[in-house]
Amino acid sequence: MIRTPYLLFLGDAPDQLAAKVAQGIQDWRPENVVGQLRMEGCNADVGATDMSLAEAYEKGARTLVIGVANRGGVISEAWLDVLSEALEIGYDIASGLHNLLREEPRIVAAAKAYGRQLHDVREPGENFPIANGKRRRGKRVLAVGTDCSVGKMYTGLAMDAEMRSRGMKSSFRPTGQTGILITGQGIPLDAVVADFMAGAVEWLTPDSDEDHWDHIEGQGSLWHVSFSGVTMALIHGGQPDALILAHEPTRTHMRGLPDFGIPSLESLRDMALPLARIANPSAVIAGVSVNTKALNDAEARQVCDEIEARMQLPTVDPFRHGAGRLVDALQSIS
Amino acid sequence: MIRTPYLLFLGDAPDQLAAKVAQGIQDWRPENVVGQLRMEGCNADVGATDMSLAEAYEKGARTLVIGVANRGGVISEAWLDVLSEALEIGYDIASGLHNLLREEPRIVAAAKAYGRQLHDVREPGENFPIANGKRRRGKRVLAVGTDCSVGKMYTGLAMDAEMRSRGMKSSFRPTGQTGILITGQGIPLDAVVADFMAGAVEWLTPDSDEDHWDHIEGQGSLWHVSFSGVTMALIHGGQPDALILAHEPTRTHMRGLPDFGIPSLESLRDMALPLARIANPSAVIAGVSVNTKALNDAEARQVCDEIEARMQLPTVDPFRHGAGRLVDALQSIS
Repeated sequence: MIRTPYLLFLGDAPDQLAAKVAQGIQDWRPENVVGQLRMEGCNADVGATDMSLAEAYEKGARTLVIGVANRGGVISEAWLDVLSEALEIGYDIASGLHNLLREEPRIVAAAKAYGRQLHDVREPGENFPIANGKRRRGKRVLAVGTDCSVGKMYTGLAMDAEMRSRGMKSSFRPTGQTGILITGQGIPLDAVVADFMAGAVEWLTPDSDEDHWDHIEGQGSLWHVSFSGVTMALIHGGQPDALILAHEPTRTHMRGLPDFGIPSLESLRDMALPLARIANPSAVIAGVSVNTKALNDAEARQVCDEIEARMQLPTVDPFRHGAGRLVDALQSIS
Repeated sequence: MIRTPYLLFLGDAPDQLAAKVAQGIQDWRPENVVGQLRMEGCNADVGATDMSLAEAYEKGARTLVIGVANRGGVISEAWLDVLSEALEIGYDIASGLHNLLREEPRIVAAAKAYGRQLHDVREPGENFPIANGKRRRGKRVLAVGTDCSVGKMYTGLAMDAEMRSRGMKSSFRPTGQTGILITGQGIPLDAVVADFMAGAVEWLTPDSDEDHWDHIEGQGSLWHVSFSGVTMALIHGGQPDALILAHEPTRTHMRGLPDFGIPSLESLRDMALPLARIANPSAVIAGVSVNTKALNDAEARQVCDEIEARMQLPTVDPFRHGAGRLVDALQSIS
């Protein structure tokens, strides 16, 4: 659990894309953001108020979140100066960098000296039980993709936001580093030891009120041979009541695997639903989420209409069209 | 890689079952066994020659393998005396115990003092790459089960032994601790970090001759919600050319999951084959392996005949009937 609210550290981000973690936090949990801290040479701006460490701390910020990729995979001296000062002032630090905070002697020493927490969110930091498969109360929805990186996290966050705006009980349950930094909690599932993956997902989505929805962040794809085991653990540990099929219509091969074609949405449905019903016999497919970023409005509309007619499922790009119809579908099955 | 041959340490095994790892080594790799070492109070005997540490070392043994479960989950003082002496004499030690050798200060100190290796085979001990899905040369077969613990390891070992006896090129590829101790190599897949599971299986079953068969040890079950992710990684990382369906006909529910029924062999076939074809489009189901331990000869025959007629696949209990017909089936597809 990461203390909120945050000051977002953008460092010397070379461009906007490098700050996408910070942007995600600002977009999805603006209430967690006090401001942004930009160093000289920073070319990113996520739209938060620029602040110094001292100013933001005074306004209540309690964790400095590294919301930017570091250049060349090293934490520079200039960064270390800022991070050390933050620890001295009173901040915890949270990071999703490959370089771990706990492997930086200056940071570790300062955190110890001032009694602060370091959160390396790529590390599980918990011991999880082996999954027991017991049915848990409350509702769960999981996006499963025709490939990796087709918008599963975005879909979950958008459905969660829509449910909250309707006054429904809803939680986003992150399983990757960006989601963890956005919400301040979750599990980096890809870093959990194999035997405990499904147990970690059970732990992440515990018993809740019958009318509460957990939006479990998806990972990988059943068709992606590098990561399909992680997807499987989400389907069985998550015991979702509903699946959302996630798709990117312009993808020509599986991400990182040029020899592997993208499956059809029908194939995904026919594979994922029986697997989901092993853990939850009443699981259904509730809708389709299409990532239409590469298309214009008319093309996006056409692709969604075509899929909707073919699959007989509500089909939207939640970024372009909102997640309302997906939430309508979830409400109708609860 | 564990140095062979072995002296099998049976300790103070309360009964034969406690020494099942040692029995597995003696049954499947007798050429790796110089003898067995039994302490006072040992009630197990795996059929190897009783020897002292010094005698076995003189006859060539180079690793003392702990082939027995320890009582109460602790390594006793009496054991520590024997293990320390073994290190002094010249042995490495290999263990699949939950208590790690490297967490026993006396053992660690002795190993360091004498320059010996400690093998805790429950630990991966390697960093594996992320799976790349590239097709590898050679043939691979994987047993997938209707449940955990239905004889998948035994099936693989039996097919490997049958192929060797026919002069075929064949390797057993262990993915669990017993198999690793039997063969002296392999990967404890359930202890590998999620992102690297499929990559570990690729590493375990590299390119080989076109007429060489890898018998990949199966783990878990697609229907076992605690471990299905591990099974999935084996199917996609292993890219098997052939699947063997493994089944225990008297099981009434999934192991450790009383609320989960056992799937039919037809369901297993219909789920596993499309998943396998994602990684290897020419994958086929080659046969059925039935664990008939709970049945008499006539019942076993009847069950296998019934399944064979229903599934139209060669069906045997490799323990009772031999693995010959399964190997025939594999030969016919290569």
